Amino acid sequence: MKISFVQAGGTMDKIYPRGAMHHGYNFEIGDPAFARILQKVNPRFTWESFSMIKKDSLDITEEDRKQLVQEIEAMKDDKIVVTHGTDTIHLTARKLSLSSKTIVLTGSMLPEKFYESDAMFNLGMAVAAVQTLGAGVYIALHGEVVPWREFRHEESNLKVVK
Amino acid sequence: MKISFVQAGGTMDKIYPRGAMHHGYNFEIGDPAFARILQKVNPRFTWESFSMIKKDSLDITEEDRKQLVQEIEAMKDDKIVVTHGTDTIHLTARKLSLSSKTIVLTGSMLPEKFYESDAMFNLGMAVAAVQTLGAGVYIALHGEVVPWREFRHEESNLKVVK
Amino acid sequence: MKISFVQAGGTMDKIYPRGAMHHGYNFEIGDPAFARILQKVNPRFTWESFSMIKKDSLDITEEDRKQLVQEIEAMKDDKIVVTHGTDTIHLTARKLSLSSKTIVLTGSMLPEKFYESDAMFNLGMAVAAVQTLGAGVYIALHGEVVPWREFRHEESNLKVVK
Amino acid sequence: MKISFVQAGGTMDKIYPRGAMHHGYNFEIGDPAFARILQKVNPRFTWESFSMIKKDSLDITEEDRKQLVQEIEAMKDDKIVVTHGTDTIHLTARKLSLSSKTIVLTGSMLPEKFYESDAMFNLGMAVAAVQTLGAGVYIALHGEVVPWREFRHEESNLKVVK
Repeated sequence: MKISFVQAGGTMDKIYPRGAMHHGYNFEIGDPAFARILQKVNPRFTWESFSMIKKDSLDITEEDRKQLVQEIEAMKDDKIVVTHGTDTIHLTARKLSLSSKTIVLTGSMLPEKFYESDAMFNLGMAVAAVQTLGAGVYIALHGEVVPWREFRHEESNLKVVK
Repeated sequence: MKISFVQAGGTMDKIYPRGAMHHGYNFEIGDPAFARILQKVNPRFTWESFSMIKKDSLDITEEDRKQLVQEIEAMKDDKIVVTHGTDTIHLTARKLSLSSKTIVLTGSMLPEKFYESDAMFNLGMAVAAVQTLGAGVYIALHGEVVPWREFRHEESNLKVVK
Repeated sequence: MKISFVQAGGTMDKIYPRGAMHHGYNFEIGDPAFARILQKVNPRFTWESFSMIKKDSLDITEEDRKQLVQEIEAMKDDKIVVTHGTDTIHLTARKLSLSSKTIVLTGSMLPEKFYESDAMFNLGMAVAAVQTLGAGVYIALHGEVVPWREFRHEESNLKVVK
Repeated sequence: MKISFVQAGGTMDKIYPRGAMHHGYNFEIGDPAFARILQKVNPRFTWESFSMIKKDSLDITEEDRKQLVQEIEAMKDDKIVVTHGTDTIHLTARKLSLSSKTIVLTGSMLPEKFYESDAMFNLGMAVAAVQTLGAGVYIALHGEVVPWREFRHEESNLKVVK
């Protein structure tokens, strides 16, 4: 079995830059957290890593999304895990929804670098889902794996009010 | 959605007892690691915790297994995640194989208390598998989710040689 | 023995706010990390916690410093550990330098919430220094405990250039 | 400044062996934890690492202690941090007490590999103490740095009973 992992930015990959140039409160997007996690897990499957977007998901543009879809479609493999910021994960999922691959998007509420992070659990969910589910686009978050259309965004009920 | 989590011992739950009574090199089985992990994840599903066995899996007897099967069968719920030592996880899986529930067994190579542990990833896999798969008994380990019959034990090829 | 711990902000206490209100890359100053660390250590000494400043150290004003000095001087105890951002730790140390207490300032390069953080080590240094040294103001960072005048700021040679 | 770090075994360095050969509940003494900790801290001082004993401290013999003392005395450096099991740390300290070096012994209640470990804090204490104190043998544990004669062993009152 082979799984391709795509970095699309988001909280999971946020780091706190260390050193003289950094002042203040800002995070940056670092190397993909999935690589650190998979090293701990030492999985039996083959995997490949692709870094496509390094942004907070609120900063991802429609152009970014279009290009992400093209690059994923151009991949030979059909089991894809995408790590993505949670704020707009459903928008990227929708853009990917015509794909004939099995694509599972996940993210985390805290950066993987935090010892209390949910990143490792969520990536585990995505890895299981991408191998047990058929073609389609899914979101694995908050302990649930759902087809992208059924994803309930954390803040959706607040936003409906307006 | 509701998931029931069953503690059956194993490395995942090993702790290093602290204090005057403890001397030497020994671990013990502590409280179930899945409770600590789920607290970090804050899942949307409902869950219940059952502690059935607190042993290294090499010490689990046929009597223990029989009782475990009975207790799981007696449960009302049909999505069951069992955390278990990896050395004999396939033996317990086989004993459970007549069940009409969806049962996913998992474990870890290092105790959850270790910062390099694979426990959180593996529990994430199990949680995804138990909600995406139909009735049956599965093992989620080493990055793979497989029906129990297809599980390749880490040392099986060594053992076949004799 | 009693030690008083003063929170003055800085990287050590930075958290990544979780939830609907948070968007983007920003940290905040959370509860003092020393309380979490001391809970793990379970020290034999008595300690008390004071939260005085919750800012990145580049945002600390002269007014903040003046007030911090007054509050520390007003304390009955004479063994004080101050956790502080590293960028201006020497400025606060200088303001405290007329004190007749033993005051050790420390901080960290990464937030305590990160599993790779130096926070716990640095707090350990400060706790040892505050009980082994006489009256004076010291900085414990980068593996060294020095009187505040001898502290070499990481970027000092860069700054000298102008 | 240069500090020499001596591994003498103990809980701090305990690991949980992973793999086919390992069954059951046993720990082993692994590589010295101080090397992992110092890598996170990135200290400004120069340091050297010596591995002398790899045992639980209850298994250290008088012969082991005699040899440890000889090897430490033969070292050129005079700032020595020794990581040691806590159960007999005072016995080794006593054997070292004729030294004219500054020697600080420390250990931990939980292995450094545990995310709740006190190892990093205790090593920070030892590093500060070895540079702020004069010649002598000290124990840094439980948040306190004391001359070895004043060390109160956790279980001493139990042992007095006999």
